[in-house]
Amino acid sequence: MRTKIRELFVKTADYASKEVTVCAWVRTNRAQSQFGFLNINDGSFFENLQVVYEQNLDNFDNISKIGVGASVKVVGTLVLTPENKQPFEIKASGVELLGDCPEDYPIQPKRHTREYLRTVAHLRPRTNLFSAVFRVRSVAAMAIHSYFQERGYLYVHTPLITCADCEGSDQMFKITTLNMNNLPLTDDGKVDFNKDLFGKQAFITGSGQLQGETFAMAFGDIYTFGPTFRTENSNTQTHANEFWMIEPEMAFCDLEGLMDIEEEMLKYVVKYVCEKCPEEIDFCDKFVSKGLKDKLNDIVNAKFTRIKHHDVIDILKKADVKWEFDPDYGEDIAKEHEKYIVEYFHGPVFVTDWPKDIKAYYMKVNPDNKTVAAVDLLVPQAGELMGGSQREENLDKLIERMDEMGVDKEGIDWYLDTRRYGGCVHSGFGMGFERLIMYLTGVENIRDVIPYPRTPRSCDF
Amino acid sequence: MRTKIRELFVKTADYASKEVTVCAWVRTNRAQSQFGFLNINDGSFFENLQVVYEQNLDNFDNISKIGVGASVKVVGTLVLTPENKQPFEIKASGVELLGDCPEDYPIQPKRHTREYLRTVAHLRPRTNLFSAVFRVRSVAAMAIHSYFQERGYLYVHTPLITCADCEGSDQMFKITTLNMNNLPLTDDGKVDFNKDLFGKQAFITGSGQLQGETFAMAFGDIYTFGPTFRTENSNTQTHANEFWMIEPEMAFCDLEGLMDIEEEMLKYVVKYVCEKCPEEIDFCDKFVSKGLKDKLNDIVNAKFTRIKHHDVIDILKKADVKWEFDPDYGEDIAKEHEKYIVEYFHGPVFVTDWPKDIKAYYMKVNPDNKTVAAVDLLVPQAGELMGGSQREENLDKLIERMDEMGVDKEGIDWYLDTRRYGGCVHSGFGMGFERLIMYLTGVENIRDVIPYPRTPRSCDF
Repeated sequence: MRTKIRELFVKTADYASKEVTVCAWVRTNRAQSQFGFLNINDGSFFENLQVVYEQNLDNFDNISKIGVGASVKVVGTLVLTPENKQPFEIKASGVELLGDCPEDYPIQPKRHTREYLRTVAHLRPRTNLFSAVFRVRSVAAMAIHSYFQERGYLYVHTPLITCADCEGSDQMFKITTLNMNNLPLTDDGKVDFNKDLFGKQAFITGSGQLQGETFAMAFGDIYTFGPTFRTENSNTQTHANEFWMIEPEMAFCDLEGLMDIEEEMLKYVVKYVCEKCPEEIDFCDKFVSKGLKDKLNDIVNAKFTRIKHHDVIDILKKADVKWEFDPDYGEDIAKEHEKYIVEYFHGPVFVTDWPKDIKAYYMKVNPDNKTVAAVDLLVPQAGELMGGSQREENLDKLIERMDEMGVDKEGIDWYLDTRRYGGCVHSGFGMGFERLIMYLTGVENIRDVIPYPRTPRSCDF
Repeated sequence: MRTKIRELFVKTADYASKEVTVCAWVRTNRAQSQFGFLNINDGSFFENLQVVYEQNLDNFDNISKIGVGASVKVVGTLVLTPENKQPFEIKASGVELLGDCPEDYPIQPKRHTREYLRTVAHLRPRTNLFSAVFRVRSVAAMAIHSYFQERGYLYVHTPLITCADCEGSDQMFKITTLNMNNLPLTDDGKVDFNKDLFGKQAFITGSGQLQGETFAMAFGDIYTFGPTFRTENSNTQTHANEFWMIEPEMAFCDLEGLMDIEEEMLKYVVKYVCEKCPEEIDFCDKFVSKGLKDKLNDIVNAKFTRIKHHDVIDILKKADVKWEFDPDYGEDIAKEHEKYIVEYFHGPVFVTDWPKDIKAYYMKVNPDNKTVAAVDLLVPQAGELMGGSQREENLDKLIERMDEMGVDKEGIDWYLDTRRYGGCVHSGFGMGFERLIMYLTGVENIRDVIPYPRTPRSCDF
């Protein structure tokens, strides 16, 4: 029976002087003439386990030659070493090579650039950086589920395949089962989607919000957490064509209530990850983004500022800064403005009441008829982390807004039913999961927080 | 401050004789001349809350006319009613109509067929059945995350978009950003996918297993949980074109270890759901599948049988049954056989060591060179719930199998690297999440356990 390395680190005292069996991969092998050290990792824990092997072992010479990356089975006694850097090590009574690793192994115990590691994305989880990042990603996902489930939210799997064109099909991938080299055509020479699997043109969606709202009208509080797709042909540090998103939607909840939830959830997730991944966060603090731990601690204790978009523009206009983009009451705020505002308030800032013309049709129009009850959450270093709004619950006003903004109502009459049948004040937000992971780890490129990133002209593995 | 109905049911004593505010939807309204009863539900709890309103309220007449489906705000005192069927009710001091619901509301307080309810999939969560099913779905998802995360598994988001054709592109949806009515062509008249977003033809995938294996070689134990797509043009009760799947993969784990995990996980999930959703399971036991609770209790305490495929065929051949499909040592086993076998063993059965010719290339060939170390888990009433195998960890043998089975190695050299660099014994399985929900609720049609099902010629909402 093998023991996981995490177990040895967490319950060291229980295993002191006992024989254990560990299966793991070799990170380093420092062989000397009389003895040697293997540093091994089985993926259960961030830190490596040190194994000492000595000349008295039958296969000492072979052990000395085991290469980095090989998988091994080690049997030995756990010895406490309080005088050393490691609190304990394994004194091996046997080391068996399970799977060899040749010398051309692309992951060597030296510094590789992140650009290089993207080319071996299937091997990079074996490095410290990606071991930390993907552990944080996994634990943060659990934190999100825990937060919502503890509070009785329903996790709803909204569909990814959609035939409703309401988001603007330009931004969605088309999907088909037809032979693209021999498409069936209608009499007028267009593609005959009636012959496709769903009998009409289908897409993969960029949001589950509309379907989420229908479930909020039954379960009260719901959230989605799933993959999302955008066709954007944009090669930046923050864009990917496939990413994961969380979209909670709450009935009987207004904009203030929405901000309460966003603030509470973010603090919960940050705290959860810091508690469950101390080694990973330490590593990122040291080697990825100095000051990360302080930043995360600060946010847990911060009171988030709430301020209207109009007042933000006032502050920006008064600021003694030469802006690349001039702040404007009717416009979005640029990255440089976001940065200034979070520094101005020394912490996270909710910017509310945005000009209606630059926001979506489903957001509730304020009594001023100029702004909508929308909110973006800006956080230090990461900019916009969440975007949400109170929804327009009045059917007539919603239709008016759809007409004003040229939104096609065909195919989403079911969505309007949420306002026809027992509609109520409700609100929701979206959070890009990768943005959160970048924030939690300090990693600056979205390609380095997604296991296998998909970006324009890049879809390998 | 409103109180959720779940809170009132769970902590009734704390609220006795206190004033509470509840926002919810009307399920029934029985008005009499002097008083009336509203049954309301806010989605936080399966049971309805009973509200009594009396003639002394200013708007008594208006309250009497509130229709089914409307949203209301109720203020009142919680009164214990131990003599009644309901343990408590709310004596209203005020009832406010929030969102009206006209009489053409498609969900009336009567029995609707499931076929009809599929046509109003956006409203069906407001019925008892779908309230139960989708709550179970949400809680079961959490159970799966909890099981794996408590044991240190890494949750990995394997990509959905893929350009590797290895699964057979016939079974995958093609995706494109090109204008399908005006496709760019190469000189030889084929679609010029170089002009597509990824610079080559792309698909959405039916499995994350291969990428999952690469992460298991770094983190030891991993699992995926995400949507999956199949283009199958099949209109049965158990097929959908979009569904969710869980795919765990464990390093240093053989077939016996794999079965231990499958058995433990299933028991954990069943127990978790029964504990968290007693009202929902009761409802399904009464109105969906009589004996459901016994079935679920039995499985938690059952010892799962483990038997080789060859021995199963022996039993089937000896059985005094006239089969529609003759049992055959070289063939898959049919639904009727599965049913017989789980009844024969009075519980769940692991069928192992399948003929290699009917299984996938990546499964480990047994020393007999005829069978592979694969396992299907059969459970009473639901048939095959999980399918898994020990993987072929030997590079040469894996390549030999790929060649034998005509699997294209192009584009998946990265997968072969898992066997080149520190490969080890490892195993994994897949479980269709909808199959699990059908098993947990007794619901027989996959369309009724998916919020918005996608099946051939059906992609509405």
